[in-house]
Amino acid sequence: MRAAVVTNTKFQVEELPTPRPGRGQVLLNVVRCGICGSDLHARTHADEMADLASATGYDGFMRSEQSVVLGHEFSGEVVEYGPDCRKRWKPGTKVVALPIIRHDGQPHLTGLTTAAPGGYAEQVVVQESMTMPVPNGLSAELAALTEPMAVAWHAVRKGRVGKGQTAFVIGCGPIGLALISMLKAAGVRTVIASDFSPRRRELATACGADVVVDPAAESPWEAAPKKGIGSVTDLLGLGFDTMQRLRRVPNLPWWYVFRLAHTFDAGPAGPVIFECVGVPGIIDQILTAAPPLSRVVVVGVCMEADRFHPAMAINKEIELRFVLGYDPGEFRDTLHMIADGKVDPAPLITGTVGLEGIDNAFTALGNPERHAKILIDPTSSAVTP
Amino acid sequence: MRAAVVTNTKFQVEELPTPRPGRGQVLLNVVRCGICGSDLHARTHADEMADLASATGYDGFMRSEQSVVLGHEFSGEVVEYGPDCRKRWKPGTKVVALPIIRHDGQPHLTGLTTAAPGGYAEQVVVQESMTMPVPNGLSAELAALTEPMAVAWHAVRKGRVGKGQTAFVIGCGPIGLALISMLKAAGVRTVIASDFSPRRRELATACGADVVVDPAAESPWEAAPKKGIGSVTDLLGLGFDTMQRLRRVPNLPWWYVFRLAHTFDAGPAGPVIFECVGVPGIIDQILTAAPPLSRVVVVGVCMEADRFHPAMAINKEIELRFVLGYDPGEFRDTLHMIADGKVDPAPLITGTVGLEGIDNAFTALGNPERHAKILIDPTSSAVTP
Repeated sequence: MRAAVVTNTKFQVEELPTPRPGRGQVLLNVVRCGICGSDLHARTHADEMADLASATGYDGFMRSEQSVVLGHEFSGEVVEYGPDCRKRWKPGTKVVALPIIRHDGQPHLTGLTTAAPGGYAEQVVVQESMTMPVPNGLSAELAALTEPMAVAWHAVRKGRVGKGQTAFVIGCGPIGLALISMLKAAGVRTVIASDFSPRRRELATACGADVVVDPAAESPWEAAPKKGIGSVTDLLGLGFDTMQRLRRVPNLPWWYVFRLAHTFDAGPAGPVIFECVGVPGIIDQILTAAPPLSRVVVVGVCMEADRFHPAMAINKEIELRFVLGYDPGEFRDTLHMIADGKVDPAPLITGTVGLEGIDNAFTALGNPERHAKILIDPTSSAVTP
Repeated sequence: MRAAVVTNTKFQVEELPTPRPGRGQVLLNVVRCGICGSDLHARTHADEMADLASATGYDGFMRSEQSVVLGHEFSGEVVEYGPDCRKRWKPGTKVVALPIIRHDGQPHLTGLTTAAPGGYAEQVVVQESMTMPVPNGLSAELAALTEPMAVAWHAVRKGRVGKGQTAFVIGCGPIGLALISMLKAAGVRTVIASDFSPRRRELATACGADVVVDPAAESPWEAAPKKGIGSVTDLLGLGFDTMQRLRRVPNLPWWYVFRLAHTFDAGPAGPVIFECVGVPGIIDQILTAAPPLSRVVVVGVCMEADRFHPAMAINKEIELRFVLGYDPGEFRDTLHMIADGKVDPAPLITGTVGLEGIDNAFTALGNPERHAKILIDPTSSAVTP
């Protein structure tokens, strides 16, 4: 099969032996494979990523000098099964799969390790237990977006945003855009998006953001509807207000007022802020500008050391949730949300290339004014996205 | 009345006019007032704290050149009421109160601002709506610990520790010790405490810690019972395990397995870690050493800029919750937990001084081998704790 192999940051399309599915695994023909921000990062900073993965207990992450087939956002068709499969779907069935596979009991990240070649290829091996058929005749293009949309869905779930809470999306790259779509699909009434790029702001609107802000011209925090806790003084006043409100309840003995007083401020009343930029300093900026009781969901991956002011976060009782990936249920729900038309990731797709076009596509993705998500079609000969 | 006044880091006992309770306020005789770590910090770094408070919307915080009566952990007796009070308790009734007061609608932090003098004095003014009687004949000493114990109770609640989850308390100063007591009172089975000081480790044991570790000799993480997710590889395996487990359920269709798959890993399976040190670098140390899916509750107040690695937190899906204070309900519950004998803060109290002894007490508190919590008795002439 043909595959794009990266070695020391250089891509080369090579003829590789057809991969063989192992026990409980399935061979797929890749129909579409998305290019992820992690792929861009892995191409140039594989060693830092591998060191970090190793420090947290995963030793199989790719190294820059290794030859790796990237690609973990794919949709495909069943070709053949390895031993011990249930063979639930006929050859030709359109499927997606979580990019995670087990060899000898050891899980591996498909498309980010030599142990599990990815979807920048004509074929890819996946785990049968992590595979699911694409429903409702959903196109291979949109099905390939299940993976990045599942990342966003996981972040939305971890953020536990109430429909009435304001959600901020800081940074409108592919994951920021996916988040906007998923927040709207979840019924969140006010989604405020912020990005320096006019093109990204245009896409944010297309994905359903209610307010779209250029942070160079206007603060996203000022664009939010004024409600809840604006300052630490408001926070201090909260106790008084709670007591006042409870005292107005008829026939409630004074001591019972105290007993109930914390049920009124159990959850953060502040907004939920999705950090999708991932550069040093952005977390501190958010901590400084965000209202008290905000929940900050950190989705952007800042690989460098970062600086922040813990006392600022303490004074505002801020919660920082760092999120990664998704679970099988979230992946499945995302696929079905797309197939059922509950969320439409179509605005994200800005181009398609063949295997020979990957190098150009990576370059193009460096410019936010041009592209968001580029798909790879292994049968295409297109070299410019 | 006599009061200890701090001006430019110097304490002086002065004769001040008897404070007059305003509308909805009560005058108390102070029976005991605890010395808090924030008081130590406010004495020497008031301006940094005021700048931070101001940046987050509270402008009334004390400045170093101002003359302030510190003290926000007090118990006392009702003396007289201001206008518009309900006068629920007879003069002489033993009470505690939240150290928060409203003047002209503006809330103020009692004992940390010139607008609301604190409990390092013979008398203090509190808000009637924030006052509650001390039940069960609880001593004034233990009642005065309601405030710091409420800080710990709030942190425990924000940490949402399950009884079966392992709790780590990093740093056994007064708040770390209060946390250990409160975690045990909440029924948490395994509480692992860590401190470099032998005296503090002794107090941690007295407060009920199950395992007490000297981090210079042994890692607190190694002392924990091995369970849950130890590495990112385990985290990757979680999806497989969830699927495996669900597949074993009889008569569950394969697609339903996917639909359920996320209900099994909805909450963090990792431990809850209480950071009670508050020095630069400690958060990064915890992020590096902690197992995946940990929840870190940041209780220690690091006033300086700090450095950390967001990607480490992302790879492990760690949650950082910054906490501050408590609400009126938590304060009330804490008082009653102490009065009902559900939690015993007695081991925290290591000394008592009169107003003239405050300067010595502040010095003594700088040495972890000697003291944890020193109380002030305004009627005492003791000058060494």
